[in-house]
Amino acid sequence: MKLVLLSGGSGTRLWPMSNDSRSKQFLKVFPGVQMHSMVQRVWQQLTDAGFTEDTYICASKAQKDMIVSQLGDVPVIEEPFRRDTFAAISLATAYLRDCQGAALDEVVVVLPVDPYVDQTYFEKLRDLERLLHETSSEMVLMGVQPTEPSSKFGYIQVEKNTGSQSMSSEVFSVRSFVEKPNTSQAKALLSDGALWNCGVFCFRVDYLLSVLEAAGLPTSYGTIRDNFEAFPKRSFDYEVVEKAKEIRVTPYTGAWQDIGTWNTFSEYITESFIGLGQAVNCEETQVVNELGIPLVAVGLKQTVVVATPDGILVSDKAHTENLKTIVSEFIQRPMYEERRWGTYRVLDYQTVNDGSIVLTKCIELHAGKNLSYQRHFHRSEVWTIFQGQGRVAMDGQVRRIGPGDVITVQPVQWHALCAENETLKLIEVQRGSVLVEEDIERMYLDWQEIQNHCLR
Amino acid sequence: MKLVLLSGGSGTRLWPMSNDSRSKQFLKVFPGVQMHSMVQRVWQQLTDAGFTEDTYICASKAQKDMIVSQLGDVPVIEEPFRRDTFAAISLATAYLRDCQGAALDEVVVVLPVDPYVDQTYFEKLRDLERLLHETSSEMVLMGVQPTEPSSKFGYIQVEKNTGSQSMSSEVFSVRSFVEKPNTSQAKALLSDGALWNCGVFCFRVDYLLSVLEAAGLPTSYGTIRDNFEAFPKRSFDYEVVEKAKEIRVTPYTGAWQDIGTWNTFSEYITESFIGLGQAVNCEETQVVNELGIPLVAVGLKQTVVVATPDGILVSDKAHTENLKTIVSEFIQRPMYEERRWGTYRVLDYQTVNDGSIVLTKCIELHAGKNLSYQRHFHRSEVWTIFQGQGRVAMDGQVRRIGPGDVITVQPVQWHALCAENETLKLIEVQRGSVLVEEDIERMYLDWQEIQNHCLR
Repeated sequence: MKLVLLSGGSGTRLWPMSNDSRSKQFLKVFPGVQMHSMVQRVWQQLTDAGFTEDTYICASKAQKDMIVSQLGDVPVIEEPFRRDTFAAISLATAYLRDCQGAALDEVVVVLPVDPYVDQTYFEKLRDLERLLHETSSEMVLMGVQPTEPSSKFGYIQVEKNTGSQSMSSEVFSVRSFVEKPNTSQAKALLSDGALWNCGVFCFRVDYLLSVLEAAGLPTSYGTIRDNFEAFPKRSFDYEVVEKAKEIRVTPYTGAWQDIGTWNTFSEYITESFIGLGQAVNCEETQVVNELGIPLVAVGLKQTVVVATPDGILVSDKAHTENLKTIVSEFIQRPMYEERRWGTYRVLDYQTVNDGSIVLTKCIELHAGKNLSYQRHFHRSEVWTIFQGQGRVAMDGQVRRIGPGDVITVQPVQWHALCAENETLKLIEVQRGSVLVEEDIERMYLDWQEIQNHCLR
Repeated sequence: MKLVLLSGGSGTRLWPMSNDSRSKQFLKVFPGVQMHSMVQRVWQQLTDAGFTEDTYICASKAQKDMIVSQLGDVPVIEEPFRRDTFAAISLATAYLRDCQGAALDEVVVVLPVDPYVDQTYFEKLRDLERLLHETSSEMVLMGVQPTEPSSKFGYIQVEKNTGSQSMSSEVFSVRSFVEKPNTSQAKALLSDGALWNCGVFCFRVDYLLSVLEAAGLPTSYGTIRDNFEAFPKRSFDYEVVEKAKEIRVTPYTGAWQDIGTWNTFSEYITESFIGLGQAVNCEETQVVNELGIPLVAVGLKQTVVVATPDGILVSDKAHTENLKTIVSEFIQRPMYEERRWGTYRVLDYQTVNDGSIVLTKCIELHAGKNLSYQRHFHRSEVWTIFQGQGRVAMDGQVRRIGPGDVITVQPVQWHALCAENETLKLIEVQRGSVLVEEDIERMYLDWQEIQNHCLR
């Protein structure tokens, strides 16, 4: 059995803490020995359940560095670009078959990367494989036992079992799917024994490949990756699950939380104030301040205040549902990112009167890491080093640099930078035309190779 | 008659919009042809009343550049450091006598730099001089006709007049002063005809000099300035007004507002949202966002949200009274200042592991202006120019600079920078020891003299 964790999320529902590369699953808000994120929590639960050897994370390119930074060197299946879950699961399945040697009858279980659940959820994943075999279904789903007639979720309607009593509590045939009903419909669904659809799907490799073939879509990893736009931008539920004929669902009765809005998410933030500043006379209020300037909250009730390099949110908790719609027009470039090599934070971003952009960043390059050997065509960079020691490869020479050194990188100049035994910190001033992030050509070399290339 | 405007304010009551150099009187929140500040509003009223030829502003060094930037080349009497109003008014009076040739019987009227009043207030200032002569008093005050039994103000208790009816409504003998009474005391004061003390004092030069002499304090401008710490750190009310024997007060019955807290100040902000971002479903809420990142406010009621380079305030309007106490522990160095030559904004401020400080600023140098010829002993500066053309005087040469130029200034190097025909913009990275702002040695030269000095 192989597990595929889908790492989705455009990051607008938890703006401004989340952004395109730092979706909610990566936010370190859970207390413990160290503050940890949802994805770290899930990975620990998978480790405890003995699954990590067979687990793959399907994620966008923008998230890959963040995953490696938080989980270490775990296998990531990289989506060429965002194309909803049907395309992503197809890519992942073909990857398992073509690149990991999965057999055609290998069982794949797909689940979200960030379920907020207890350990029994993961133990139950093994039941899915067994039930797939026992029931000879095309697919077995996991459904969450509802706790209230919520109108936020999709429901799975089940057939009343005619089999034995013991079987009835474990697996049901699926009758139909109902997407986000109103409350009275939801009440009827509950009394009818319906379950919440939590996005956990179990199927065999050959089943999905046959679906792709029948749809005239590519079935090998390379062709799927290179023709990703051939896939409809639709959900796996819509394209596969709802069309399957022999499909069953098994109930999960443990804890399950949808942490998708600030209202619910803030319940898991155990500190009432995180960061520089203070809350005075506030009730049921959470403040998270990631900026270097103080934040003072006075006399607030049931409010969420979040300040990050991406923006500032001040919201009544009862009004956080529609945040996605509200903030979509204000989404700028990400102002903070964790990368494979460290982090950067945008300090300033402005347009000059000649139309060019000036971007000022604080970059922290972790000990022993390096920025890739790269060049730009439409921008220059000025680095002022202020902490740590490192080396710059540029202009046919490799030289040691440290606090006080100023390095100017002109357009078309190949350059790389590495940190030695401690974190290297610098201020970077970029000047150039609008699409600054895409204006990059890289050589994928390690530091020794970069030095050899530079010095040759 | 000479007018002295006292420009006080440490700027904590309207934090984070105000700071040490940008007190509330300089905040441009009043609409008009251009947004204007309280001090600009008052200066216009003084101009309309024909007073500006005889008006002097007594201010701290930190405020001087801001005053010149907002009012042009007005006379500023510079306090060596903050020492409350007794010291400030003594310095200003000695300045008028010694540096402006004021006669000993010249009448001085002292008033705050930022009364929010109508034009009749300024017309009434002439009455003060006349009443000083007519009543042969040591001092005549202006008192505001109270509109409510407020416990926020000081009260002036008056003697019931025994003179003619016409006289009685114009001037009263002062019986005593009551500082911030409780509400029931305030009610009694109101029915007794007491007035609010609004900090307007009228006296002759020789009267104040005799008070100083009797107290064994210096009386000449130079000695006061050089011995400023000899003055007790007390108010003019306490040291002079309350000790005077022949003192009268004349009522001002026009509009008068104390705009000292966000609760009252926000009433004068006519836009509900200023800056980048949006307010959704908010009621009686004002948002001011001076940062370059978006701010989204959702579902707030009677709240003030203010985000500036100095910090972020989110406060229920009913709770803004004690802000001064709350924020005092978070006051950092000013993060935004208007100077004689332009503005700067601190983008980042961090301590390095070797104890030094790195400060990243965005500097805007106005057309035709220059940074003074200066040097530092404990810091280096790296300038990356990104807009405009200018000239740098350094190392015995003057050279033209423009976008893309990077200038490194080492400790002990004399340097100056001027902008040519448009605003020059640059990112500055300062590195040095803790007291970076005080680490400066200046030559007070104009640009031509700087060039000559540099090239000689």
